[in-house]
Amino acid sequence: MIYDAAIIGTGPAGLSAAINLKQLGKSLVWFGSAAFSDKVEKSEMIANYPGIPYVTGPELNAHFRSQVEKMELCITDKMVTNIMPMGKSFMLLAENEMFEAKCLLLATGVNATKGFRGELELLGRGVSYCATCDGFLYRGKTIAVYCGAKRFEHEVVYLAGMADKVYLYPGYKDCAVELPNVQRLPLPIRAVTGQDRVGSVVLSDGSEYAVEGLFCLRNAVAPATLLSGIQLDGAHILVDRQMRTNIPGCFAAGDCTGLPYQLAKAVGEGNVAAHSMVEYLAE
Amino acid sequence: MIYDAAIIGTGPAGLSAAINLKQLGKSLVWFGSAAFSDKVEKSEMIANYPGIPYVTGPELNAHFRSQVEKMELCITDKMVTNIMPMGKSFMLLAENEMFEAKCLLLATGVNATKGFRGELELLGRGVSYCATCDGFLYRGKTIAVYCGAKRFEHEVVYLAGMADKVYLYPGYKDCAVELPNVQRLPLPIRAVTGQDRVGSVVLSDGSEYAVEGLFCLRNAVAPATLLSGIQLDGAHILVDRQMRTNIPGCFAAGDCTGLPYQLAKAVGEGNVAAHSMVEYLAE
Repeated sequence: MIYDAAIIGTGPAGLSAAINLKQLGKSLVWFGSAAFSDKVEKSEMIANYPGIPYVTGPELNAHFRSQVEKMELCITDKMVTNIMPMGKSFMLLAENEMFEAKCLLLATGVNATKGFRGELELLGRGVSYCATCDGFLYRGKTIAVYCGAKRFEHEVVYLAGMADKVYLYPGYKDCAVELPNVQRLPLPIRAVTGQDRVGSVVLSDGSEYAVEGLFCLRNAVAPATLLSGIQLDGAHILVDRQMRTNIPGCFAAGDCTGLPYQLAKAVGEGNVAAHSMVEYLAE
Repeated sequence: MIYDAAIIGTGPAGLSAAINLKQLGKSLVWFGSAAFSDKVEKSEMIANYPGIPYVTGPELNAHFRSQVEKMELCITDKMVTNIMPMGKSFMLLAENEMFEAKCLLLATGVNATKGFRGELELLGRGVSYCATCDGFLYRGKTIAVYCGAKRFEHEVVYLAGMADKVYLYPGYKDCAVELPNVQRLPLPIRAVTGQDRVGSVVLSDGSEYAVEGLFCLRNAVAPATLLSGIQLDGAHILVDRQMRTNIPGCFAAGDCTGLPYQLAKAVGEGNVAAHSMVEYLAE
């Protein structure tokens, strides 16, 4: 099946686009966390969203959830790690599965982490973003894992079942993974090194741990990693007023397109992007 | 008093900007109908606004009203008919009163009516947008009035108290103005003519009525009439991604900046504009 549209991201921008594309009768594959935006969830109080005066993040996400259910929108809770433009469509790789869509919306939010030094250079040569895709390659080996959120803990467990030894650094508090062959790293990972392939990770104090692989489990992959050739403006994806990127058929919305990082902006841009995508599909 | 910011328009874009400017501690004068957006009010059902699944227009305006009250935002229910850039501030003329603000947001919506033929040319020479401003000039004279909405009927009554005779064309159903010296025009006004000053109005069948003045009472004045020198893109105000117009300190948001005419877009643009205005004020 070729979908009319793929959306990456279940934050407010992705949601706004999904609602509109569905309403406008387009077939849709929508990737992201079924728990919606972590950033919204963690908001203590949102007071500047027109129509809902004073709402907590969890309340707003509950509104979003009910809206998604009412509109019978389906979320594919997989992480897209690579996108290939194919001329008239895009191929998306999500945890070992391929999806095809005629157009594409990046609503990936802003990545606080820029990736580790050496990460991009060694991607595909020991650096991986997907435990279930590449885990089997590290059977009986020693690996490092950066776990960026609680929702990836099952992937750490999966990797521990494959690898001989796992050096783990969780990017959040209260990591629950306790396994005999999983050793916590005492400090954050700063770099990954190696000539042809990953040879070690380097921590923030310069100490080195020899590993054959590094898994980076994060909520989002940096746009330039996801889709090569996409034009950036600093850390953000460059878009025009119609939310078009430099790649025909590829649109972007929400925090990933720049400041201000605001709910209303994200929702507005998701709406505009959906309308632009429908126009693009009609051409 | 010089306000930090003036907002023209109480639709979703103006509301979104007002909420944010207030939250960000800016002083504000906010012009428009205290009844909020007519376009929202007349929406049977809005199903694509994230966070509020399926809401009627009147319900949504009720949400807006409660939010404005909770935030102690004040609406100045006057129509701005002229704006003059003064270098570091703007002077706004609203029904005979002058207001001054350091920066400005146009959130005026889209004007369905483009104005009558000859209207712009004869503005200030018999054509007026403000009954209480210019009515006294037509004491004992014959005038025509285009009344664009029920909320202007009291201005028609005011004009009838001044003028000897009023030819009235209401742009809506159920006009309630019935006065001995007010005569309904049988067809819509198409043009206003005259050499130095207004001499007559021409109806859609070509018939002509001699008058000395024409009052156009509409919800919004066309942007180019409101603020001379503002750059347009067709019928819309040209803005960049920060919602800046070509005039420094003047921003625009909502339907007046272009398609799609969508609630979410308006709300998002109002938010972005408010943040850009705060940045502008800090410079």
